[in-house]
Amino acid sequence: MATAGKVIKCRAAVAWEPTAPLMMEEIEVAPSQEGEIQIKVVATGVCHTDLYHLFEGKDKCGFPSVLGHEGAGVVESVGPGVTDFKPGDKAIPLFLSQCGECKFCKCPKTNLCDRNNRTIFHIIFHPLAFFGNVSFSLWQTVINQIAVAKIDDDAPLDRVCLLGCSISTGYGAAVNTAGVIPGSVCAVFGLGAVGLAAVMGCKNAGASHIFAVDINEQIFEKAKIFGATDFLNPKAYNKPISEVLSEMTSGGVDFSLECVGNTEVMRTALESCVKVWGVCVLVGWTNVKDISARPIQLISGKTWKRSLFGGNQVLKARTLLQNWLIDYMTGKIKLDEFITHKMSLEQVNNAVNLMKTGQWNIFSLTSFCRIL
Amino acid sequence: MATAGKVIKCRAAVAWEPTAPLMMEEIEVAPSQEGEIQIKVVATGVCHTDLYHLFEGKDKCGFPSVLGHEGAGVVESVGPGVTDFKPGDKAIPLFLSQCGECKFCKCPKTNLCDRNNRTIFHIIFHPLAFFGNVSFSLWQTVINQIAVAKIDDDAPLDRVCLLGCSISTGYGAAVNTAGVIPGSVCAVFGLGAVGLAAVMGCKNAGASHIFAVDINEQIFEKAKIFGATDFLNPKAYNKPISEVLSEMTSGGVDFSLECVGNTEVMRTALESCVKVWGVCVLVGWTNVKDISARPIQLISGKTWKRSLFGGNQVLKARTLLQNWLIDYMTGKIKLDEFITHKMSLEQVNNAVNLMKTGQWNIFSLTSFCRIL
Ligand SMILES: NC(=O)c1ccc[n+]([C@@H]2O[C@H](COP(=O)([O-])OP(=O)(O)OC[C@H]3O[C@@H](n4cnc5c(N)ncnc54)[C@H](O)[C@@H]3O)[C@@H](O)[C@H]2O)c1
Ligand SMILES: NC(=O)c1ccc[n+]([C@@H]2O[C@H](COP(=O)([O-])OP(=O)(O)OC[C@H]3O[C@@H](n4cnc5c(N)ncnc54)[C@H](O)[C@@H]3O)[C@@H](O)[C@H]2O)c1
Ligand SMILES: [Zn+2]
Ligand SMILES: [Zn+2]
Ligand SMILES: [Zn+2]
Ligand SMILES: [Zn+2]
Repeated sequence: MATAGKVIKCRAAVAWEPTAPLMMEEIEVAPSQEGEIQIKVVATGVCHTDLYHLFEGKDKCGFPSVLGHEGAGVVESVGPGVTDFKPGDKAIPLFLSQCGECKFCKCPKTNLCDRNNRTIFHIIFHPLAFFGNVSFSLWQTVINQIAVAKIDDDAPLDRVCLLGCSISTGYGAAVNTAGVIPGSVCAVFGLGAVGLAAVMGCKNAGASHIFAVDINEQIFEKAKIFGATDFLNPKAYNKPISEVLSEMTSGGVDFSLECVGNTEVMRTALESCVKVWGVCVLVGWTNVKDISARPIQLISGKTWKRSLFGGNQVLKARTLLQNWLIDYMTGKIKLDEFITHKMSLEQVNNAVNLMKTGQWNIFSLTSFCRIL
Repeated sequence: MATAGKVIKCRAAVAWEPTAPLMMEEIEVAPSQEGEIQIKVVATGVCHTDLYHLFEGKDKCGFPSVLGHEGAGVVESVGPGVTDFKPGDKAIPLFLSQCGECKFCKCPKTNLCDRNNRTIFHIIFHPLAFFGNVSFSLWQTVINQIAVAKIDDDAPLDRVCLLGCSISTGYGAAVNTAGVIPGSVCAVFGLGAVGLAAVMGCKNAGASHIFAVDINEQIFEKAKIFGATDFLNPKAYNKPISEVLSEMTSGGVDFSLECVGNTEVMRTALESCVKVWGVCVLVGWTNVKDISARPIQLISGKTWKRSLFGGNQVLKARTLLQNWLIDYMTGKIKLDEFITHKMSLEQVNNAVNLMKTGQWNIFSLTSFCRIL
């Protein structure tokens, strides 16, 4: 293609400082280096983790930076040594690699990969990439093929982009990390896109009861669509919601998933599990505060663990995403139901505001798509 | 026997209040009720958990109370409905039952049993039993057969009594709860009887390196006997011992075991594990403070869990103890090496003082035995 080996100028939504609106700026995207591919981003979702960086300034990427990490697009050009992609392929860039070679890729106990996928923009003003797979730009590059999932030509980019983070994360946390089993009783705390996907995971894994817990009751209707059977607003009770759940389930739930990103809720989720075999999975993201618990909470069989990007230990990131793509195409996984808005990249601040002001809660996921 | 169906008067070491010395008092032991047996205690070990109750007043049993929960003895009489024991059998009373009938006993995920084994003394002055299997008395009763392990006639009571708590706890935490595998790198924090037994467990499970961590260096020699290969005193470094371990093991240990009962050490033990597949087992006991950690410490595969009485999920308490008894008799498990002192029950305060003043550290385990 005409762009192969060349610097591409394009527009991107740039975060200059915490809390300030994103600004549309011209950036320069480097040509692909060894093993790398350039992807033209066609659609992207928004995920709360971007807000965490943007409005709370709590992650280490720094400013200025380009956000977004739920993109899907088309391969524009490939660098030397690229074997897995050719221009025109549809692709989803991932924030987690799968090199297949490192000690973690060879270990059946984790989906982490030791190799980095960080995007570096070659630049007029040196913005940083929040994630390796940034998507709030017209072009995306310097992403190594080890962190890109090739997808079918007939996959609708404006839906499957959601597999790039929140849906895979929540769904996988339930089916893989928690390992929800048929007939079990589950509780999902926080019903954003991640939590709703966790509800869907519990449902698909055969849970008999799925308690949907959120302080925003307007989201319950949506949660029902994904399979929730019972609905609890912690603010409606004058005792801890873990006690309420314990009474309703004679001792606690089998599986609990924290999808808020609040350390107090993480504690509550652990305390809501039945002793002995209860499993509490932390999906919500926070890296500035400690989680705490009484040691006895972990007694004899009860497990507290985290999940990252679907947490499948055997199928790593790219393989897993491709499997779930098939599940979407064959109707096993819902994606369309998560989409509440479609916007252009220029409207990105509207999308961010919907998340930021809490209105987005009403919409369950503020997903915006940009067709070039 | 002459005592069957009768109240027995006997002497016991009674704790009247926190920090006060134990007093030898006459107590009355109730006749065995349905399913219960009376055991004449012949030998007992001492465990730090008693001190926790006695000197820190932090457990809920209350005062006056009879302590000790590492006893071994001989069945004196049996109540109606007792099928598993007859007078004269050697037996180890346990603080954990195995009824075989409850939902937990039927679940292959835990060694807890839902049925209580709490000893009730029928009494002149109503002392309470700290554990269901109290041993600091000449007689022990009202313990249901579901919480008693029958042992071979040729088992030496003054050694196998140690299987009643600390050794089973530490050893099982390594081989069962942590699931130490051959070739792995382990760290044991705290080298009391529990920690030394954990070292032995790591060794028997085939660990290639066993880091023994204690602030008392005099214990290291003993730890070597049980299989420790490397020795660290956190006070000898001017950086966190988790960093030291991480550097020495390129990223952290595969398995860490906290055998101190200190929430800061629990955090350190978690942080000392390698990311991804590291397993941190909490063995130390504390129920008044929170454990804390950065959520990211639990990321993707890393596990934080507790262990209680050897933590075997399939073999419950009585069965497990009997298996380990065979392991001791056939030389696979060391017990003799844990014994540092032999005393009569009248000397119980000496034993407690050895633990309390820290001198007991020098002896690794203050075990005292009382031959009637
Ligand atoms: N581990 C991972 O790989 C990963 C990936 C993506 C997102 N995340 C994290 O997952 C979390 C959820 O992401 P999202 O995009 O769905 O967020 P979101 O903000 O859309 O949803 C959070 C939900 O939690 C509810 N909530 C807030 N406080 C609550 C409380 N005290 N009790 C119950 N509910 C409460 C809100 O009303 C909202 O519905 C975030 O912390 C995000 O950073 C983690
Ligand atoms: N989970 C269970 O089922 C169970 C059973 C028995 C005992 N326990 C608990 O296990 C713990 C150990 O019992 P024990 O009888 O071996 O106790 P102990 O007091 O004999 O041994 C504790 C050891 O930890 C060392 N230590 C103290 N502070 C330390 C630090 N900061 N870093 C490293 N080492 C430190 C001491 O020097 C000592 O050698 C206690 O908390 C006890 O209550 C738990
Ligand atoms: Zn890799
Ligand atoms: Zn995300
Ligand atoms: Zn004990
Ligand atoms: Zn039972």
